[in-house]
Amino acid sequence: MNLLRKQARVRRLDLDGRVEMIHGGGGRATAQLVADLFQHHLDDPLLCKGGDQAMLGHVPGRIVTSTDSHVVSPLFFRGGDVGSLSVHGTVNDIAMSGAVPLYLTAGFIIEEGFPLRDLDRIAASMAAAARRAGVRVVAGDTKVVQRGKGDGVFITTAGIGALADGVDLGPSRISAGDKILVSGTIGDHGVAILSQRENLEFDGDIASDSAPLGDLVQAMLAAAPQLHCLRDPTRGGLAAVLNELAQESGHAMHIREAALPVSATVAGACELIGLDPLHIANEGKLVAFCPAEVAAPLLAAMRAHELGRNASIIGEVVEQAATPVEMTTVLGGRRVVDWINGEQLPRIC
Amino acid sequence: MNLLRKQARVRRLDLDGRVEMIHGGGGRATAQLVADLFQHHLDDPLLCKGGDQAMLGHVPGRIVTSTDSHVVSPLFFRGGDVGSLSVHGTVNDIAMSGAVPLYLTAGFIIEEGFPLRDLDRIAASMAAAARRAGVRVVAGDTKVVQRGKGDGVFITTAGIGALADGVDLGPSRISAGDKILVSGTIGDHGVAILSQRENLEFDGDIASDSAPLGDLVQAMLAAAPQLHCLRDPTRGGLAAVLNELAQESGHAMHIREAALPVSATVAGACELIGLDPLHIANEGKLVAFCPAEVAAPLLAAMRAHELGRNASIIGEVVEQAATPVEMTTVLGGRRVVDWINGEQLPRIC
Repeated sequence: MNLLRKQARVRRLDLDGRVEMIHGGGGRATAQLVADLFQHHLDDPLLCKGGDQAMLGHVPGRIVTSTDSHVVSPLFFRGGDVGSLSVHGTVNDIAMSGAVPLYLTAGFIIEEGFPLRDLDRIAASMAAAARRAGVRVVAGDTKVVQRGKGDGVFITTAGIGALADGVDLGPSRISAGDKILVSGTIGDHGVAILSQRENLEFDGDIASDSAPLGDLVQAMLAAAPQLHCLRDPTRGGLAAVLNELAQESGHAMHIREAALPVSATVAGACELIGLDPLHIANEGKLVAFCPAEVAAPLLAAMRAHELGRNASIIGEVVEQAATPVEMTTVLGGRRVVDWINGEQLPRIC
Repeated sequence: MNLLRKQARVRRLDLDGRVEMIHGGGGRATAQLVADLFQHHLDDPLLCKGGDQAMLGHVPGRIVTSTDSHVVSPLFFRGGDVGSLSVHGTVNDIAMSGAVPLYLTAGFIIEEGFPLRDLDRIAASMAAAARRAGVRVVAGDTKVVQRGKGDGVFITTAGIGALADGVDLGPSRISAGDKILVSGTIGDHGVAILSQRENLEFDGDIASDSAPLGDLVQAMLAAAPQLHCLRDPTRGGLAAVLNELAQESGHAMHIREAALPVSATVAGACELIGLDPLHIANEGKLVAFCPAEVAAPLLAAMRAHELGRNASIIGEVVEQAATPVEMTTVLGGRRVVDWINGEQLPRIC
């Protein structure tokens, strides 16, 4: 095992090369790719131990698990890439339960011909994101498909987190009178991907908000243990999450457009291309529901965290109503906030 | 939550339709696909609860995890399909540690235009395989990529198992004098895939051996707690596993060709197409290493199990040698058993 780890440190892989079918064959070429590229960056003793599974030992608390497949296009974008996104996507799903994300597994499906240097960059970015999120990548798998049967790299991560006893978040706890908070500006990830994909230039820089939310969640739980529910508004945006939670909780939601944090650049871009920031995916934001009396300390705790600086109370939960989610516009009118209609931004995550 | 489960039982999805990009959008179409197809078959309360993560509670024993991406082509083959294979692949990796597989997550990457009826068949097969393996599919994700950017369906599963205290298997325990056993005939999965892919007709039926090995492993541990190491010879076949374990254990292996269980059909097919059964993938077989004195009771326990009927003692571990793996042929000669050279059968799993 020590031998394997030492070999991983001397890289013999030619990064000017490309991924070939043989790298997925399970023989020596696969072993070299795994050692010189994945283990080189994701330098975890469990991953580098080899074998087909990772023994994590006893995990304290209740176990929470989640999975996400990442097919984002383009693979590299301002503010991240498929490697960091694949960490954040799963880590955040775990974190929304209140659990501390601990471990990740990663399955790579790579298209023949993919540049090894790009794969190396993705593995390095994944490793950096995992370190920042405080999770260990403990098991992985590499498959290669023929040219034209994939699209660069798809990464499916699954995560394991530990939920402390006494923490119990979920839609069933959402109550009439709860305040609704978001942790920051919405729409950044989706607009960043779109602008890069379509080669659009907007006024101002737009970067994905892709980030790991576990630490923010723990700060929120410390400040307001009475928290009722958390969810991250990814695909479908804030509108989808609010509608989902209205349905699951049996309540309705009222939000105020004036309270919604949207960057000037995202607002401008959305106006230009006819999109609604409420429908656009985020990868480093969360929505929180809490009793009104703890909304102020919760907001303060969020704003004190680097990933919650632009947090805002955007509305409140009301008894069931004909319209699950309604918004008071900046002009004082009211409008229905519905799920997106049709396909807005494919392959956003 | 009860509402969601009831909705899942009334299917409104038109199975004559095809997967469209909008099914991956995260909106209503995604929700319907998940409810009417995945939750319909994989009817687990945790999966049907919705939300982005599954709360498993306290898991007894030490946690073992693993992941596998499945890109098998063709998707349907004699003896299984990508759905059942994606259960067996990960369940078996967990089982090889001696742990009891308990939970699976599944990430689907689906190509636009894929027939919903085929996806339904895959989900049903996955559900049946999970029931047989005694595992629950507790979390999932669905992504859709454009036509020509995928190949039907890729499924990445990750698993969680519980390892009882006192069970400690692994290559470091392999010792000189250990007996080497296989649980049955080798090469069936690879030859089944190949014959289907290339439209080859062989004498006799060849079906994949794809099967869940958790139950067999527990029977083996009960009969021979002194067991040293288990591994399943998938990609790269028995030859790759023996070479890997020789390297990881620092020992060498001697096997006897005459003791290798190979079906007449697989032997005939291999001769015809110039393949070596030792290099061909299996999906329902394992290799075991144990002290010589427990080899007989272990073999008896394996043969008493439906998935170990053709088990055999194929050789023994020796002190380190110049050749990591050597085989005495049926003619009495000796030959090196090496990793496969080059790409033999791409996308076998």
